[in-house]
Amino acid sequence: MKITTAGESHGKGIFAVIEGLPSGVELDIETINFELSRRQSGFGRGERQRIERDKVEIFSGVRNRKTTASPLVLFIKNLDYENAKGYMSPEDCDEEIEKLTKPRPGHADLAGIQKFSLKDARNVAERASARETCAHVAAGSVARMLLSSLGVYVTGYVRSVGDVADAGEYSFGEIEKKRTSSLCMMDEGKEAQAIKLIEQVKEEGDTLGGVLEIRVKGLKSGFGSCMTAAEKLDAQLAFAVMGVQAIKGVEIGLGFSDAAKKGSEAQDAIYFEEGKYRRKSNHAGGIEGGMSNGEEIVLRAAMKPLPSLGKGLPSVDIETGEAAISQRVRSDVCAVTACEVVLESVVCEVILSAVLSRLGGDTAEEVRTRYGELQ
Amino acid sequence: MKITTAGESHGKGIFAVIEGLPSGVELDIETINFELSRRQSGFGRGERQRIERDKVEIFSGVRNRKTTASPLVLFIKNLDYENAKGYMSPEDCDEEIEKLTKPRPGHADLAGIQKFSLKDARNVAERASARETCAHVAAGSVARMLLSSLGVYVTGYVRSVGDVADAGEYSFGEIEKKRTSSLCMMDEGKEAQAIKLIEQVKEEGDTLGGVLEIRVKGLKSGFGSCMTAAEKLDAQLAFAVMGVQAIKGVEIGLGFSDAAKKGSEAQDAIYFEEGKYRRKSNHAGGIEGGMSNGEEIVLRAAMKPLPSLGKGLPSVDIETGEAAISQRVRSDVCAVTACEVVLESVVCEVILSAVLSRLGGDTAEEVRTRYGELQ
Amino acid sequence: MKITTAGESHGKGIFAVIEGLPSGVELDIETINFELSRRQSGFGRGERQRIERDKVEIFSGVRNRKTTASPLVLFIKNLDYENAKGYMSPEDCDEEIEKLTKPRPGHADLAGIQKFSLKDARNVAERASARETCAHVAAGSVARMLLSSLGVYVTGYVRSVGDVADAGEYSFGEIEKKRTSSLCMMDEGKEAQAIKLIEQVKEEGDTLGGVLEIRVKGLKSGFGSCMTAAEKLDAQLAFAVMGVQAIKGVEIGLGFSDAAKKGSEAQDAIYFEEGKYRRKSNHAGGIEGGMSNGEEIVLRAAMKPLPSLGKGLPSVDIETGEAAISQRVRSDVCAVTACEVVLESVVCEVILSAVLSRLGGDTAEEVRTRYGELQ
Amino acid sequence: MKITTAGESHGKGIFAVIEGLPSGVELDIETINFELSRRQSGFGRGERQRIERDKVEIFSGVRNRKTTASPLVLFIKNLDYENAKGYMSPEDCDEEIEKLTKPRPGHADLAGIQKFSLKDARNVAERASARETCAHVAAGSVARMLLSSLGVYVTGYVRSVGDVADAGEYSFGEIEKKRTSSLCMMDEGKEAQAIKLIEQVKEEGDTLGGVLEIRVKGLKSGFGSCMTAAEKLDAQLAFAVMGVQAIKGVEIGLGFSDAAKKGSEAQDAIYFEEGKYRRKSNHAGGIEGGMSNGEEIVLRAAMKPLPSLGKGLPSVDIETGEAAISQRVRSDVCAVTACEVVLESVVCEVILSAVLSRLGGDTAEEVRTRYGELQ
Repeated sequence: MKITTAGESHGKGIFAVIEGLPSGVELDIETINFELSRRQSGFGRGERQRIERDKVEIFSGVRNRKTTASPLVLFIKNLDYENAKGYMSPEDCDEEIEKLTKPRPGHADLAGIQKFSLKDARNVAERASARETCAHVAAGSVARMLLSSLGVYVTGYVRSVGDVADAGEYSFGEIEKKRTSSLCMMDEGKEAQAIKLIEQVKEEGDTLGGVLEIRVKGLKSGFGSCMTAAEKLDAQLAFAVMGVQAIKGVEIGLGFSDAAKKGSEAQDAIYFEEGKYRRKSNHAGGIEGGMSNGEEIVLRAAMKPLPSLGKGLPSVDIETGEAAISQRVRSDVCAVTACEVVLESVVCEVILSAVLSRLGGDTAEEVRTRYGELQ
Repeated sequence: MKITTAGESHGKGIFAVIEGLPSGVELDIETINFELSRRQSGFGRGERQRIERDKVEIFSGVRNRKTTASPLVLFIKNLDYENAKGYMSPEDCDEEIEKLTKPRPGHADLAGIQKFSLKDARNVAERASARETCAHVAAGSVARMLLSSLGVYVTGYVRSVGDVADAGEYSFGEIEKKRTSSLCMMDEGKEAQAIKLIEQVKEEGDTLGGVLEIRVKGLKSGFGSCMTAAEKLDAQLAFAVMGVQAIKGVEIGLGFSDAAKKGSEAQDAIYFEEGKYRRKSNHAGGIEGGMSNGEEIVLRAAMKPLPSLGKGLPSVDIETGEAAISQRVRSDVCAVTACEVVLESVVCEVILSAVLSRLGGDTAEEVRTRYGELQ
Repeated sequence: MKITTAGESHGKGIFAVIEGLPSGVELDIETINFELSRRQSGFGRGERQRIERDKVEIFSGVRNRKTTASPLVLFIKNLDYENAKGYMSPEDCDEEIEKLTKPRPGHADLAGIQKFSLKDARNVAERASARETCAHVAAGSVARMLLSSLGVYVTGYVRSVGDVADAGEYSFGEIEKKRTSSLCMMDEGKEAQAIKLIEQVKEEGDTLGGVLEIRVKGLKSGFGSCMTAAEKLDAQLAFAVMGVQAIKGVEIGLGFSDAAKKGSEAQDAIYFEEGKYRRKSNHAGGIEGGMSNGEEIVLRAAMKPLPSLGKGLPSVDIETGEAAISQRVRSDVCAVTACEVVLESVVCEVILSAVLSRLGGDTAEEVRTRYGELQ
Repeated sequence: MKITTAGESHGKGIFAVIEGLPSGVELDIETINFELSRRQSGFGRGERQRIERDKVEIFSGVRNRKTTASPLVLFIKNLDYENAKGYMSPEDCDEEIEKLTKPRPGHADLAGIQKFSLKDARNVAERASARETCAHVAAGSVARMLLSSLGVYVTGYVRSVGDVADAGEYSFGEIEKKRTSSLCMMDEGKEAQAIKLIEQVKEEGDTLGGVLEIRVKGLKSGFGSCMTAAEKLDAQLAFAVMGVQAIKGVEIGLGFSDAAKKGSEAQDAIYFEEGKYRRKSNHAGGIEGGMSNGEEIVLRAAMKPLPSLGKGLPSVDIETGEAAISQRVRSDVCAVTACEVVLESVVCEVILSAVLSRLGGDTAEEVRTRYGELQ
């Protein structure tokens, strides 16, 4: 399975193209739209989310709500294009409008200007924008539907917002229940604190990030492989997660805290019960030797505070070379909830891709049969 | 550029194949061997390092110490194969010898047995072993030689061993000087503490991990890209680093601590001086929007304590289903220093790959000319 | 550069997604539409071409008629979807309408039914249809625009229709002039004969194929490479051309007739004149050792007669297992002219891809400068 | 499955690396060596074949004659390296020895000199040489062993040598029987004529090519796919075959003669018998819509006469720019028999790759079970 995204933040819309899906996967379009709406939600989101009402349009690869094995094209229209086409149209438009000449520290703006020898950062900012993540939410939702039919489920939550951190341990079932709260945090007290912090930071014209945790339940052992670098499941997850806008760190299982432990504290003792190998703990986060080991996959990622600040940041006007405050661009104060949905989605993509490359299969039915035959 | 590794821990040896190198890269074979010896060194290494004397043999792709653009084959012989060929030979051998039937928690053993329907973990353990990393050290050294000729340098150090952590900030030059100390730590006091800890833990039959920091200096802005997922430089680095044996976390710049900051504290203010854009800080760790931004790349990774413990761990004998202590396999107590060398190496691979895909070039000379022309 | 296509023959439309284009390629949308109209033209085309009026819509990757380096999404709407949506809609529709249960020999129908465990061939026929080729015509037109700005040009003609064959030799300039004749043949007498043959064969309810010749002029030497299988330019061309619907053979230079020659008759003598290496002949068709050698690339392909015959072919009704005449599906009698345009297009894609992987380049300007610097 | 080759004609040896093989494939090393000896045989071969005695050495990926799923490294030593190391050693050697400064028309020599800015063609000629094909013979033999265990068989024969052509039609069984004759032709009279022709042409200091036919028997329908360009089986075969040294044309089924037929003559009528769909003919050569259709795959390729002639060809001395006769390099007069073995081998690689991507599978046993379950 291969997923390609396309589209710009204020262009006509965002695309996800999925190749390599088996035939006969049943799609619930309402569920895709529900995940898209979750991506738009969460306390701390900005004005753009009031303009957009993201709905997927399926252009190809599906007939009568079932995949055909032909490449899937999913499209999410940018309603804001109506306001932007004067400077964003593929055909004649005025590139002088909405020029982005005071690059925003933390964004792709300056590196992109240098890479592409540009006079302003518009072309770069349009593609680097996290608007692109709605493609992954749509594609990930499709992946999730096939995974669910195998008994593989993905969920997650927001573990911290700024310095409001939750140190609790939660079961998959508990997380799933909370998945649609206003900030997607598990502890209501922490969530209330976080909301207050977001309000305060918004007042200051500042922004916040946070830590997200993603879980995968029901994946049998042996997905991914230790045999080649390209097949390692943890490497694939790290690639997908680090590639999401604003992510600066990713860890699996104990992650960074693993480094401070002794071996006898860090590994997961094996025992055998009711015909199955089991573990006393899950410090490995479900992956050993680049393969799933049958335990829950536990992954955490760090999202930096968004770099588009209401009050701006010290920068340079590239037209004059003079010091300037970075361009004000409509943005969110805090988008951890959206990011949580996005991370679940890219994790769904990676897991399904590993499933299909191990099992092959031309039809969803074949995939399910072969999955069922694994020990 | 594409790098493929092959070989088993107790097989004939380890291979790295590098495709896509330009012609005319001058290779200093002694330097490759020096890096290989660094990978073998570091306080806390085990018996295997007393058997091996890793030296690269170049089989193809090089004439008269210069690359020819033909695929490079680098080989590091396993001297230990002489002891192992009775059960490891590709031709007739006895698979009953050295069976690995009490899987080691934290290793690929159990997941591999399940994936490949095996009666013991030997086939899996042989390939999952960190012995494979010498391929990356050899390949990374080759990549480093071309990078150095562009003025791009890679170094690193051990930031913590177990709970002995160094919170200092160090310049690239300082790190480079210390790169060959016995544990590759920067603070001599901490290094002494860490050595003591390793000795103590060795007594206990236990193991240790740590945190490594890697730096890249001299890389101009605009490598990688925000345009497609596959081109994002941070994602590529995360993939390569997480794919290294025993790594459980990776972060760039502030990484996980970025998540607790406000936007105004986390981004790197831009200014213009002497015809160049510069930054007041480097919280981003040299990457914004999936592209290098001209600042040093700063990456940290968490290595878990090694899962082959002298005293073993609770496991199951897969032949009987009975509880058992995991198989004792010769291993290191602590291999953070080796891991530091390996991480530098995979970072060299990723950076050179990004350089070549942006610049193209059939000859090293062409690559240098085009690199020089970038702003 | 990577090109992905999507879409079904009677679905909403056909997509081409182009990743890896440099920024700043100027697009003439009218030229894309002109090539699309050429694909629809040619004597012998069927009813479908009277329904469609193919025009490209650019969805992303372009602003103000210039590429931005963001993935390009090109869309060609299927006007016929209005008639087909009752059975083709991604959402609710009736799969019983227009079932294709009497598979057409020569089509993907039967193999597809078996592969995907289908009850009829609709899903397969929709994607296997040559309607997909309009994606390549659009993408190839974009590639051609950048190639033209380097001085690299692609043209072609129809060398035979059924048994009406032209044995002449033509210069690139002559071919370019004739490129828009009704059958795209060079010899007017042969073209008249071919038109008569098509009329006669149409009467019979039968179909015709032919041989196409494609030429590339102005490509400097050294594109592609002898160093790895993946880089061989002739292999890449063979892949792209053989992958086009209905193509059953591909040859470069003398091709199959090369096999009957002696070495002394088959190779192209080298001489040196005005500071350049030149050739006395071009039997190699511009490629030696998997690389362009600076001469014109000459490629021929064999297109089989279309397998959707007016009168049908002996087949089986898969619902009953009884013998039946294959399903009548609207089709062309002869589509060699369309195929010629398609082959030019995929050749443009391959050549540009080889150019970009050798030269790298973030902007069209950079690509042009580097191309100019080659000898 | 992915196959990488490395090595130079007069370097230490030739490598094939195979990634993605399932575990548990039983390897008969003698059979690999037998195919390697076939590649060295055939009337018309030159002096080099008297020096080499190609035997495979397996370096990794195999234990006790069974694959382990770890990457396979196969090595064929160049005995001639002993004579060549003075100018071919990766370490110190003298590049002035055996310089190739009078490029041979038809070889990679001149294009390679220009591409890599070389002073002589040695580096290019060493890699472009058909010596590399022994890697594919070894890898293809491994692929063949797994295919055979599925009931899929590959054979082939020489259809013409120069202008001595055989127009006969032969069954798979007949071909298999003749596969080891001195020229691998089917008709003894033609073979005798061809041998005479080779003798005569050798006298003249000239060379010969020919046409090869490859067959695949027992492959079920539905391998490859019509859904994406990358999956088309005919395109993959064309890529692999056209990438073989000296191949200038490839066709499937009727191939170029298909273009002259009417649709009613060219397609393969379908009927149903004993629970199976069958065909009255096999003009399609076993592939429709980019998928196997269950019939024999029939592929033909044109090999040009070898470009290293005893008497040389008109060229230029690149050191002086003066006209010169191309450098005399030891070569064969005719290598069609070797090429036949090579083409069988690359076809085995492509077919197995298509099998594994459709079926997945960690073990040979799993692959066999899933193959058996297909209709």
